[in-house]
Amino acid sequence: MTDPIIILVGPQMVENIGMTARAMMNCALPELRIVNPRDPWPLDDWLKERLYAASSGADDILNDAKLYATVTEAIADLNHVYATTARGQREMVKRWLTPRAAMPEMQQRMASGQKIGILFGPERTGLINDDVTLSNDIISIPMNPEFSSLNLAQAVLLLGYEWYQFNDRTPASVLSIGNSQPATKDELMNFISRLEQELETAGFFTTEELRPTMQRNLRNTLQRAEMTEQEVRTWHGVIKALTVGPKRGKKAS
Amino acid sequence: MTDPIIILVGPQMVENIGMTARAMMNCALPELRIVNPRDPWPLDDWLKERLYAASSGADDILNDAKLYATVTEAIADLNHVYATTARGQREMVKRWLTPRAAMPEMQQRMASGQKIGILFGPERTGLINDDVTLSNDIISIPMNPEFSSLNLAQAVLLLGYEWYQFNDRTPASVLSIGNSQPATKDELMNFISRLEQELETAGFFTTEELRPTMQRNLRNTLQRAEMTEQEVRTWHGVIKALTVGPKRGKKAS
Repeated sequence: MTDPIIILVGPQMVENIGMTARAMMNCALPELRIVNPRDPWPLDDWLKERLYAASSGADDILNDAKLYATVTEAIADLNHVYATTARGQREMVKRWLTPRAAMPEMQQRMASGQKIGILFGPERTGLINDDVTLSNDIISIPMNPEFSSLNLAQAVLLLGYEWYQFNDRTPASVLSIGNSQPATKDELMNFISRLEQELETAGFFTTEELRPTMQRNLRNTLQRAEMTEQEVRTWHGVIKALTVGPKRGKKAS
Repeated sequence: MTDPIIILVGPQMVENIGMTARAMMNCALPELRIVNPRDPWPLDDWLKERLYAASSGADDILNDAKLYATVTEAIADLNHVYATTARGQREMVKRWLTPRAAMPEMQQRMASGQKIGILFGPERTGLINDDVTLSNDIISIPMNPEFSSLNLAQAVLLLGYEWYQFNDRTPASVLSIGNSQPATKDELMNFISRLEQELETAGFFTTEELRPTMQRNLRNTLQRAEMTEQEVRTWHGVIKALTVGPKRGKKAS
């Protein structure tokens, strides 16, 4: 299985090409194609330096990038091409997708052996209609309609981000406890019993009527804390320190 | 209902603050707080110019940004705070969330009146452990583990993007046909009948044995095209032009 190919059409600034490479590397997208960039390649040393500086180390992608004179040539070996454009600007009969909706269908196409490309137009002007027509579908990133202009590399980042998330298996939510173990209910109840006994001794429960509610509140707080074994031991120490009494009192005397 | 508040802790470059404002405006996040920036505020004219240039017009967010000396002060009025950090760097007992998983719970908290903040640390170093400890949970953006360093404003963009998507109602996939109407099945079948009749006349169906398969193939292509009324009319014109014969032949004679 391959990855979608990022195709920059007529990019104006070498910095944006470099930042695109960085965004692609962040998202593990390896293949960049560049169509008719403003500055002719191979770049002179000054432009090359700016290009690589902007990529923050994503050199491999820049070194492997392929150059084309036209979009038609750049997509010749591909089976399905998506054009990215701002929403609602095109008067043509075309399917529009959100980036998120595009990912599962991209994956299905690739799983059946298709090669996929995503076109990004020049800064400011975007893709011309003829290039959109060469594509199968349009991907448009939902953004604040009153301020929707994205930097080129940021648009690539958002597409790459969606692709990476779609394939990523990071747990959505996890309590990280390192080498420690989650406390058992028995360990937690031992601590709660000790706390409540000390509170009893200290006269914390002023009325028998309120005791059940107060106990439940304390217990619920501690349940929510999801303590580790180590943390329960630390809190045993806290109770001990508080009940044995102030050392600072001794020092002060 | 409010929006999550973006809090930059110790940002080093005014360009990154400006690009953060741009990313926030893209995602309709209005409130920016800045803790102890490297360059003291109010900025001198030279830095101010770079700040506003980088924001590409997101001036309102910069004008309304609030400055704080410490994280403690910046989060004093909030109920729940998320710290953003790179994955797996912290040896503390803390809940980790993906940006996507954080959004529904942020929304639930806000719906019950809570004020939410998201902390972003300084470029390169990230948040110090004491600031992470001031937070309830950690949000970490899943990225290529071999190249996971994101520009500050890009990290803000990705969080803002997830928030915007979570609240956005853009259809995932839609065929945009402007003022035209989707063709009815009757209009499509009329066209198919005409095409097949003309193909019959032209001797396209060479064997009766293959005719059903060939017909089904042609019909499936046309079904997949999901034509509009206007497009069906255009294709009627195509058949007419092809069968009436070559005008260019006349010209050439």
